[in-house]
Amino acid sequence: MDRQRLEKQIDFILEADKEKNILRQTHLSGHGRRENDAEHAWHMALMAWLLKEYSNQEIDIARTMAMCLIHDIVEIDAGDTYAYDEEGLKTQKEREEKAKQRIFSLLPDDQRDEMTALFDEFEAFETPESCFAHAMDNFQPFLLNDSNGGGDWREHAVTVSKVLGRQSQSAKGSAQIAGFVFEKLEEHVREGNLIEDRDK
Amino acid sequence: MDRQRLEKQIDFILEADKEKNILRQTHLSGHGRRENDAEHAWHMALMAWLLKEYSNQEIDIARTMAMCLIHDIVEIDAGDTYAYDEEGLKTQKEREEKAKQRIFSLLPDDQRDEMTALFDEFEAFETPESCFAHAMDNFQPFLLNDSNGGGDWREHAVTVSKVLGRQSQSAKGSAQIAGFVFEKLEEHVREGNLIEDRDK
Repeated sequence: MDRQRLEKQIDFILEADKEKNILRQTHLSGHGRRENDAEHAWHMALMAWLLKEYSNQEIDIARTMAMCLIHDIVEIDAGDTYAYDEEGLKTQKEREEKAKQRIFSLLPDDQRDEMTALFDEFEAFETPESCFAHAMDNFQPFLLNDSNGGGDWREHAVTVSKVLGRQSQSAKGSAQIAGFVFEKLEEHVREGNLIEDRDK
Repeated sequence: MDRQRLEKQIDFILEADKEKNILRQTHLSGHGRRENDAEHAWHMALMAWLLKEYSNQEIDIARTMAMCLIHDIVEIDAGDTYAYDEEGLKTQKEREEKAKQRIFSLLPDDQRDEMTALFDEFEAFETPESCFAHAMDNFQPFLLNDSNGGGDWREHAVTVSKVLGRQSQSAKGSAQIAGFVFEKLEEHVREGNLIEDRDK
């Protein structure tokens, strides 16, 4: 065994541990505490496995799950940027690019390249796997927030246009899941959990 | 789309969310707080992807990762049983069997059967996938505890025989990883983090 290779892999694995301390805006179901990135990624990967039948296109489920597991790792340095935080979104790319280089460079060179490519594939949002992973990235916090009566949206005074803009992208990965979400969103508008800002 | 099918899948996904509140005895690296089951499963699945080259046998990595993601789900009802808690271990099987039936029955019948089979395969510890998943289940808390100077073992006054008994099983999945762990364990014995109870 190449001992140095395993030690590099362990360095990365211990660095990844820090994702457990990056808090998101989403709250656990049952009006729980805020969720962290590792929990979110676990839930997404499990959902990808369970819901793969709804993918628009055939997907390599192993690569999709791996993508789910690592898609937020850059937030160890860059922090979580809430999907509806317009100021944060302006600098997100640059912060995440630096983090990506530092963190994946802990791995042996071949795995640095492999994991960087997987991360970039997720970000580029073009392949069937990345489109389905994105659908999970949107659907997972939606389900938690829906189960909590839309509390996360109310807390941030989110408009329906914003949520539609984000969730509509899920249709690239799964038209069926996006359709389900759209239907549910109308209920949240009726209940006043999302601010109606669409033209009549 | 079969709406009732998706709703059952969502019921299961929201039930699984409760894993984020099941605390383990392991502490996060950097002498952090206690880890929960969802974080542990995320880390294990990521490790399975990154360390698959060390598996003794060829494995289906997607099934291995799925197994990692769900292997602790029964603890939602049954609670976490610490690997070195002899009293808890006596009733663990029965508690987990009941939980398994309740939780997986939330899914549509075909997925109830599929996920139960995957869970049972992990427990039976015979296939290459389950042996490698078990190796990750042992290696993940080992790495965290090792990074924290063996604090979890000291807290529970764990003997080296106990840890050897558990970690030696990892050799069924990865002789290389088990070998690495054995070497590290001797350091922890020398440093007094594990109680020496082997015959001279």
